[in-house]
Amino acid sequence: MRLEKDSLGSIEVPSDAYYGIHTQRALINFPITGEQTNPELIRAFLEIKQAAAVANHLAGNLADDVADAIVQATNQLLAEPFDTNKFPLDPIQGGAGTSTNMNVNEVIANTAIELLGGQKGDYQLVNPNDHVNMSQSTNDAYPSAGKLALVHLLEPLQRELSALIDALGDKADEFADVYKMGRTQLQDAVPTTLGNTFHAFLKPLRRDAHRIEIAAEGLYPLNLGGSAIGSGINVSAIYHENIISELAKLTNLPLKQAHDLFDATQNLDAFIVFSGSLKTLAVNLSKMANDLRLLSSGPRSGLNEINLPARQAGSSIMPGKVNPVIPEVVNQVAFEVIGNDATVTAAVEAGQLELNAFEPVIFYRLIASINHLTHAMKTLRENAIVGITYNAEQLAHDIDFSSSYATAMAPIIGYNAAAKLAKESLKTGLPLRQLAIASALFTAEQLEHIFRVEEIIINSRTKEHGVVLRNSIHHTVE
Amino acid sequence: MRLEKDSLGSIEVPSDAYYGIHTQRALINFPITGEQTNPELIRAFLEIKQAAAVANHLAGNLADDVADAIVQATNQLLAEPFDTNKFPLDPIQGGAGTSTNMNVNEVIANTAIELLGGQKGDYQLVNPNDHVNMSQSTNDAYPSAGKLALVHLLEPLQRELSALIDALGDKADEFADVYKMGRTQLQDAVPTTLGNTFHAFLKPLRRDAHRIEIAAEGLYPLNLGGSAIGSGINVSAIYHENIISELAKLTNLPLKQAHDLFDATQNLDAFIVFSGSLKTLAVNLSKMANDLRLLSSGPRSGLNEINLPARQAGSSIMPGKVNPVIPEVVNQVAFEVIGNDATVTAAVEAGQLELNAFEPVIFYRLIASINHLTHAMKTLRENAIVGITYNAEQLAHDIDFSSSYATAMAPIIGYNAAAKLAKESLKTGLPLRQLAIASALFTAEQLEHIFRVEEIIINSRTKEHGVVLRNSIHHTVE
Amino acid sequence: MRLEKDSLGSIEVPSDAYYGIHTQRALINFPITGEQTNPELIRAFLEIKQAAAVANHLAGNLADDVADAIVQATNQLLAEPFDTNKFPLDPIQGGAGTSTNMNVNEVIANTAIELLGGQKGDYQLVNPNDHVNMSQSTNDAYPSAGKLALVHLLEPLQRELSALIDALGDKADEFADVYKMGRTQLQDAVPTTLGNTFHAFLKPLRRDAHRIEIAAEGLYPLNLGGSAIGSGINVSAIYHENIISELAKLTNLPLKQAHDLFDATQNLDAFIVFSGSLKTLAVNLSKMANDLRLLSSGPRSGLNEINLPARQAGSSIMPGKVNPVIPEVVNQVAFEVIGNDATVTAAVEAGQLELNAFEPVIFYRLIASINHLTHAMKTLRENAIVGITYNAEQLAHDIDFSSSYATAMAPIIGYNAAAKLAKESLKTGLPLRQLAIASALFTAEQLEHIFRVEEIIINSRTKEHGVVLRNSIHHTVE
Amino acid sequence: MRLEKDSLGSIEVPSDAYYGIHTQRALINFPITGEQTNPELIRAFLEIKQAAAVANHLAGNLADDVADAIVQATNQLLAEPFDTNKFPLDPIQGGAGTSTNMNVNEVIANTAIELLGGQKGDYQLVNPNDHVNMSQSTNDAYPSAGKLALVHLLEPLQRELSALIDALGDKADEFADVYKMGRTQLQDAVPTTLGNTFHAFLKPLRRDAHRIEIAAEGLYPLNLGGSAIGSGINVSAIYHENIISELAKLTNLPLKQAHDLFDATQNLDAFIVFSGSLKTLAVNLSKMANDLRLLSSGPRSGLNEINLPARQAGSSIMPGKVNPVIPEVVNQVAFEVIGNDATVTAAVEAGQLELNAFEPVIFYRLIASINHLTHAMKTLRENAIVGITYNAEQLAHDIDFSSSYATAMAPIIGYNAAAKLAKESLKTGLPLRQLAIASALFTAEQLEHIFRVEEIIINSRTKEHGVVLRNSIHHTVE
Repeated sequence: MRLEKDSLGSIEVPSDAYYGIHTQRALINFPITGEQTNPELIRAFLEIKQAAAVANHLAGNLADDVADAIVQATNQLLAEPFDTNKFPLDPIQGGAGTSTNMNVNEVIANTAIELLGGQKGDYQLVNPNDHVNMSQSTNDAYPSAGKLALVHLLEPLQRELSALIDALGDKADEFADVYKMGRTQLQDAVPTTLGNTFHAFLKPLRRDAHRIEIAAEGLYPLNLGGSAIGSGINVSAIYHENIISELAKLTNLPLKQAHDLFDATQNLDAFIVFSGSLKTLAVNLSKMANDLRLLSSGPRSGLNEINLPARQAGSSIMPGKVNPVIPEVVNQVAFEVIGNDATVTAAVEAGQLELNAFEPVIFYRLIASINHLTHAMKTLRENAIVGITYNAEQLAHDIDFSSSYATAMAPIIGYNAAAKLAKESLKTGLPLRQLAIASALFTAEQLEHIFRVEEIIINSRTKEHGVVLRNSIHHTVE
Repeated sequence: MRLEKDSLGSIEVPSDAYYGIHTQRALINFPITGEQTNPELIRAFLEIKQAAAVANHLAGNLADDVADAIVQATNQLLAEPFDTNKFPLDPIQGGAGTSTNMNVNEVIANTAIELLGGQKGDYQLVNPNDHVNMSQSTNDAYPSAGKLALVHLLEPLQRELSALIDALGDKADEFADVYKMGRTQLQDAVPTTLGNTFHAFLKPLRRDAHRIEIAAEGLYPLNLGGSAIGSGINVSAIYHENIISELAKLTNLPLKQAHDLFDATQNLDAFIVFSGSLKTLAVNLSKMANDLRLLSSGPRSGLNEINLPARQAGSSIMPGKVNPVIPEVVNQVAFEVIGNDATVTAAVEAGQLELNAFEPVIFYRLIASINHLTHAMKTLRENAIVGITYNAEQLAHDIDFSSSYATAMAPIIGYNAAAKLAKESLKTGLPLRQLAIASALFTAEQLEHIFRVEEIIINSRTKEHGVVLRNSIHHTVE
Repeated sequence: MRLEKDSLGSIEVPSDAYYGIHTQRALINFPITGEQTNPELIRAFLEIKQAAAVANHLAGNLADDVADAIVQATNQLLAEPFDTNKFPLDPIQGGAGTSTNMNVNEVIANTAIELLGGQKGDYQLVNPNDHVNMSQSTNDAYPSAGKLALVHLLEPLQRELSALIDALGDKADEFADVYKMGRTQLQDAVPTTLGNTFHAFLKPLRRDAHRIEIAAEGLYPLNLGGSAIGSGINVSAIYHENIISELAKLTNLPLKQAHDLFDATQNLDAFIVFSGSLKTLAVNLSKMANDLRLLSSGPRSGLNEINLPARQAGSSIMPGKVNPVIPEVVNQVAFEVIGNDATVTAAVEAGQLELNAFEPVIFYRLIASINHLTHAMKTLRENAIVGITYNAEQLAHDIDFSSSYATAMAPIIGYNAAAKLAKESLKTGLPLRQLAIASALFTAEQLEHIFRVEEIIINSRTKEHGVVLRNSIHHTVE
Repeated sequence: MRLEKDSLGSIEVPSDAYYGIHTQRALINFPITGEQTNPELIRAFLEIKQAAAVANHLAGNLADDVADAIVQATNQLLAEPFDTNKFPLDPIQGGAGTSTNMNVNEVIANTAIELLGGQKGDYQLVNPNDHVNMSQSTNDAYPSAGKLALVHLLEPLQRELSALIDALGDKADEFADVYKMGRTQLQDAVPTTLGNTFHAFLKPLRRDAHRIEIAAEGLYPLNLGGSAIGSGINVSAIYHENIISELAKLTNLPLKQAHDLFDATQNLDAFIVFSGSLKTLAVNLSKMANDLRLLSSGPRSGLNEINLPARQAGSSIMPGKVNPVIPEVVNQVAFEVIGNDATVTAAVEAGQLELNAFEPVIFYRLIASINHLTHAMKTLRENAIVGITYNAEQLAHDIDFSSSYATAMAPIIGYNAAAKLAKESLKTGLPLRQLAIASALFTAEQLEHIFRVEEIIINSRTKEHGVVLRNSIHHTVE
């Protein structure tokens, strides 16, 4: 054990620990979830600390060897596998992230000290506060690291979202000419195509991709340079001018300095907006998952229109049963993301005066949302979407026996008369076509139009470039 | 009473009722809230019905006199005060809005019938379904009316939001040179200005104004022309091509036809996005309201930095008490909007296959959100913001006795040494300045820098065009 | 107009208004929802004010004629139809309810003044504060009125809940012998009965009835007698001892005085608990509504197992279509109640120190939850449940062609072998019975057991007093 | 690698894996969170499997050696440290928990096989399905395991809750005679004691302890014996009668068999109720944490009434700053629990027909809620509550200069006159006492009463057994 000191006194830290007293205190204060701070958040912090060292060096405030050692230490930490012995802190912590900021400062300092030939704890060589944290405050470093981490995690999310959209598009093409019944309020309505169904799955996801991108723009403006409360106290002008460009260079990201650093320090609306964009994606995925489960229900006592790939035995007791396990996991992730959004909303609302101290739980749940959605979309695509097939016989049967032709009759004989025929068909079980002929209400030409399924359906076929609209029956018959 | 018929049979309707059998049935089915459908939703419906009549007439499917009567009837209904005897239905209803759609169809039909010299119920003159609802389905008319209603209500919201931003900006200017303590985690941090505080109030609102505008773009694409499930069944090509432009002309709004009408009929993500933009505004307003209540707390046992205008006696028992009643009402509206967002999220997620049948509750709560936020911002501005004053003495005292100068000492003597002095100041009650001099740790020049309040503060003053950054103390002293 | 004065100055009030200056100010401050305070909340207030007058009179602090006039005035106001001209205030208001408390005080005072022969505004006869509000503070009167209002509204809710449970029970009895397929994860599982389905609908509701009753117990302890912050300042011991018993006598309710009046004034957990009990009911109703919509889906391309009564024409364009409009309205009320719970949660969390100032929005949304649920259950019962019928042919067909017998085979030939047969049946379309015989894996006796549907089903029939369990196949065949 | 087979085909499993093919497939299907199923859920499963083996043996359906091996295997697995190599599955999974159920079946089977001298995969010795899962379905085993796990986790929660209540009670006693200002709406109201404040913190927690206990009663009825959908198919009567008593014996818990097994399988309202009880606790803790942060705000520019123990340096840049880090972590856990409740609500609502397939995410978030609350209460007590001190000087000063005496004046001179004096005091800065004397509105005796602080305060002192009410000023002066 080695003894470390801070303004509150001295405590022991394990001799081989790269972290120091502030981390040690936080381990005692915040044993909440049993999990560790997300590696991406630590990675983002390491990048910030490196850029800060460069900018402080530029400003003439950090000696060459200290700056070099910090840069080398962060490079080393970024390169090695994530080590929970170095970064052991809980993702939920009080103190607005000070503990994780100091954890990173301490690990970098001790790594740099060793690079300079010193021993862990020789903070006169490299000081966690005075050197590694120079020109920063947790007030600016922590939210900036959170934003950076989310941006890093966004790339895989968008990649999976895009792959899912493509897979749905392929299915929409494959199923472009597959006729099926459309339903409103779970009741038979009018025919459509299975291609339309898959187009309707992918369109909102395409909007989501765009919306997430727009929402993520709120993550690029960082409040680095603001130090305490956004005031820029203890920040040199040269650091202030260079910190963002150095970080942008290092990360290859279009980062910006927030226009108003006070605002950027206390108002976390960017996170609620970002969370909202994830929630909307989650809701769209959940609606799709619900539909996939409905359409594949059965096989005997359900809609039985499509088949999801069998991914595992469906029951420990009912042999032969295959369940929609992949859509089900998507639904659950969606429910989790909806809950995470409630958490983020509550935490953002709770900000007070010059700071929102509740960023740790915001990052904790946002990172969960983004990661779980990424993984859910991957398994949805790979293990469900690409292998979907349809049951041609069932689909054809449903159309043939439906009352949907009554809708095409209405413009000719009026809504009430058409409704009467539809009701009779249902009561007698006789097909509407037979009743229509018997009714003598239609000319031969009209009958041909009404029951030409392809004509109803061509009207309802979407392409990538929109609806192809024929001249409608109605117009034709006038 | 007069007898009306539909496909389910006949029932009696009051003789003088402009509505008909479908409305009558709905009155029995949905006595839920005791409220009526929002007038803006009815107004939007009337506009749609008029545009549809024009487009149907253009397509040659509606006779001149019927089309004329419908146009005249809708004009008359739009001009007269909202009449709950004509539009008596509950905002929450089953049937995906069919009842309200039919209510409007019936009232227009009976009004038009009278214009044509007929008597209410003479539907061979003007038929609610065959004429007024021609080329439409509730599937397209209802969501389009909902979107249109929200767009109509957006204008007052944005106007109030803009006025509030301006009022906050005026206060930020007025308070630009008023120094005050900044706090993080409710603990004394470093000085700032009251102008910064008000800038930090208005900046997120400015982002909200932009975000709401972007979110509202999702309300412009309508699925009119899609009729049932987006298929366009019974819709003539001419109507299809003209309905949106007619409606755009009538409303003077940049409406568009949705690219994929199936998608637009079943996926309601635009409403979740719009609700999210209102929720973000609500959260930002709530954070501001919380801060206003904190800063005006006291007058003796609180922060007592600012004074809200006294709007009413604060207590029925404690004389002389004045409470922050206006921010409190803002908080409550924010809580309601947060709840409404949860409702909208649940309802959007519940859509199934080709339709989401839960639009009525979505519109009901979204209209509440938008209206209540509009009114809350108005009273916040008029009855609180514009009359805020500050307590100069309190603000000055807080800065003088603070330990915040320790932050400016840290770059010179190190964080730990500065912390020690700060703790001593707190323990002894002696001002930090006195202890600093006694410590002999600083040169005279350094002391001068450290305690030059204006210099700390100039650094932390926001202008409309960002932070004005001086050369920092730190940089100077190197 | 007449001029009224308070501690902030003088303003004009309409001459014929029963309300006074405090109400007038609130009208200007809180024009938020356009709605009025719920009549039940006003009724509860009137009861409290009457009980307070009696208790104050008992304590010797209120003169006979004033006390009499107040009692008579409240009786008169309780007897007459609710008058929004007298009680015009918005349900959402700042000031923790002071405005509504003063509105009631003013209307009672002016009514009493007239009873005593004075003119409105002659507050030396009966003073809203000094007489009507004697021994009270908004801190105790407002939350007590809110609790009382909720208790009043609970009776119709429990009555409708009970009637719904009974109606479901009648259906469960009616359908006790109707066999149907059971489904897990929307996939065919094993047979059950339609009676079981209805039992499973009603059981959670029975728990809800109990849970709501338990949750409502948190509404009986009132903080009357606590006046400001629960301190009991300006409250005489005699009033303190008698106010609750007077109110209990008047309302015939088992009201209690809260044990710790500070606690009861600042902690609103009872409302979050009550809201939670309503939310659980809402979720159970929504699950039932979802199932009703699923089971009645079709009529051709759906499960088509049951028929909901046709309540209205289902489409403005698709003739003959009948939709599950009643369950749909139930779902929407459930979504609203879920949102209201989020609002209540946020508002309760926001309480600070000795008071929670956000009670108005809590009561506003809780009253909506309770009323809308009451009405939704009524229409669900009357317009859906009691008229449900089933489709015997469909139900029988589903069982005959299912693979569910494989589950009964598994104990004899093992899970994997049974699964193999089930898969073969699905692939070939041959009934499992035929394949089982051909497989020679079973004795004749075993086959008889496996395919004896009644035997599977008897096992799965619930009665009011639980499952009737036969000796299982498994046990029999060993 | 060894090859394993199921009804879908064969795949390879690592040779040394105790799990088998079903787990292997689930690893591919559900790589969502990167976390493993909670150890308590596995523990509960192991207990169920052991009890099932005993009950099946009793029923004569499981051979002695197989039953023995299963019992021994589960004992061994319960005794050893949790091994994520054996139980590697993700907590969020599709299939309603089938994968985790099969994972446990497989690990037990292979452990039992080894105990019988066989090699992993020799499932003819002990079969995961036919032996370990005998008489069960995931439909009953999984929700029962979830309930059991929650019950196990409840004990530490209740213990920490109880310890926290005790610690708050000790502080309430310690601070019983410490006078302080009470505030409503953050404005000075009337005096109270710091003891009252701590009583008001603990009282809702005491209710929570009771409510959680009541809510947990919903976790005791298990649906074991119901197998698929609650039908009891393949369940022998002897197993059915003994499974719960065996499990109760093993776990020493008052478990019961659900009255209606269909209901218990498909309706998950018990979890929403349980989650609600945790949410209410979370909200009460959050309100307390908010108050602790407010009361300890400062030290110069805040309320500064109490001091939280300094747990760590409060800022990486502001020396000497100490922040309320422990209450802050409590707030964050509360926000997380509020979000988890939204997730649970959505998942419970999504149940369909005979099963709710979304139990995995329900258990995942409920276990997080219960664990995080337990840990948050522990650190709150140990690292904050027990070390709280107060600032006597500040407290006394706040009372002396307050206007609260005006409340005691009102019964004598009327509300309006008292309000006038209070306003004058605030405007002039002169103490109310001085103005009161000068006003000549009071007798000497009245003045003595009004300004006798002890008398106001004795009225507002809570004890464990309620408010001690003196004869009030009002009553005295009449």
